[in-house]
Amino acid sequence: MTYCVGLLLKAGMVLLSDTRTNAGLDNIATYRKMFVFEDPGERVVTLLTAGSLSVTQTTLARLREAIDHPEEGVPSIMTAQTMLEVAEIVGNTLASVRHDIDVRMEASKVSTSASMIVAGQRKGGTMRLFLIYPEGNFIEATEDTPYLQIGEHKYGKPILDRVVTPDTSLEDARKAVLLSMDSTLRSNLSVGMPLDFAVIEKDACRVSRRQRIEAQDEDFRAMSQAWSNALRDGFQKIRI
Amino acid sequence: MTYCVGLLLKAGMVLLSDTRTNAGLDNIATYRKMFVFEDPGERVVTLLTAGSLSVTQTTLARLREAIDHPEEGVPSIMTAQTMLEVAEIVGNTLASVRHDIDVRMEASKVSTSASMIVAGQRKGGTMRLFLIYPEGNFIEATEDTPYLQIGEHKYGKPILDRVVTPDTSLEDARKAVLLSMDSTLRSNLSVGMPLDFAVIEKDACRVSRRQRIEAQDEDFRAMSQAWSNALRDGFQKIRI
Repeated sequence: MTYCVGLLLKAGMVLLSDTRTNAGLDNIATYRKMFVFEDPGERVVTLLTAGSLSVTQTTLARLREAIDHPEEGVPSIMTAQTMLEVAEIVGNTLASVRHDIDVRMEASKVSTSASMIVAGQRKGGTMRLFLIYPEGNFIEATEDTPYLQIGEHKYGKPILDRVVTPDTSLEDARKAVLLSMDSTLRSNLSVGMPLDFAVIEKDACRVSRRQRIEAQDEDFRAMSQAWSNALRDGFQKIRI
Repeated sequence: MTYCVGLLLKAGMVLLSDTRTNAGLDNIATYRKMFVFEDPGERVVTLLTAGSLSVTQTTLARLREAIDHPEEGVPSIMTAQTMLEVAEIVGNTLASVRHDIDVRMEASKVSTSASMIVAGQRKGGTMRLFLIYPEGNFIEATEDTPYLQIGEHKYGKPILDRVVTPDTSLEDARKAVLLSMDSTLRSNLSVGMPLDFAVIEKDACRVSRRQRIEAQDEDFRAMSQAWSNALRDGFQKIRI
């Protein structure tokens, strides 16, 4: 499993992903699920991935190949005219990789699947945040629902619903996604530290801040403890 | 969908269920999912149900028939020697009903499924809380994990994990299950008011308190609002 979340705010986009992958409970590993492509000041595209690692890695490899070898004429996310086109390229690549792998898997009756969050902005365009489904179609974050999640999304949703609006500051947004991840880490063993965090400030067209948060991170632990205490205090004060 | 939760505490058992059933989003109805069988002072058995309504209603009907017609020799939950035996009777009945209905459904490639929570005590025995799986096997709540959930369990789990221990008072437990339900109601449209709440005090061998909480219940609304405020306040105070 996985938990990745992206927020689309007036001040910028805030992204967080875990790094745990597993093939059964007895086969756990750490893989990055956040990938940044940037031409600083001109274009930034960040991908968050969930699902079958063979699908997401091959999709990433094909997207990179198209960037590195423009002469082959395969559409590239770094030269696409719009962010919508970027989402389409990612969706098409993902669906095509999934199809190729499913053909191989048919004999063993196993089906593979993956989904992605795409966050990006090109110079002169607006920030856009997409969720790409395993079939390659996608939806986009809006003012009404300024966040998108992939993977184990349920445990971490209540906090986002309660505190995130398009006007949320980047600092508060950081806190919100970290607390959302904290609730998920507590409840689902297949979501695990370290975490990858990134902020794309509005119109910067680059990743403004990037951080890997390790399992032993003192600030994260303190926040987690403070949140537990706040919940317990709040609980004690309520009368019914 | 459904959300039902049961707590096994030193002071007693606390149960809460919603009442929404749906066959698609365009076919929503209200059905009770909490059923009490009692011989006050001698024995109390409470069932909470989730899953296919045709399975749960038929299971309940068969359990009632066995109680009403002891002469037919079908094991009855009101005369079983132990609560373990009660759980076995419920499990066997559920599995057998499910099998009967699945045979009918085979042609349309639809599979039915249901699960239940069984909470009970007989005079001279201990309070016991079971979760019955669709296949009829079951697990039991223990001191380490003093609660069981069926249906849409994820949204409401973080609050239970944080505040419920076997020493929790019945009043705090009521607050905890109502807040757990509140988080679920907010996030899953197929869980809906009114709610059925019950408390079985230790060694009372009867339902000590029973309440239906309607959608317009002012206390529930105030609690929900107070909890939202407490979460937002706690959130604001945390530094990271």
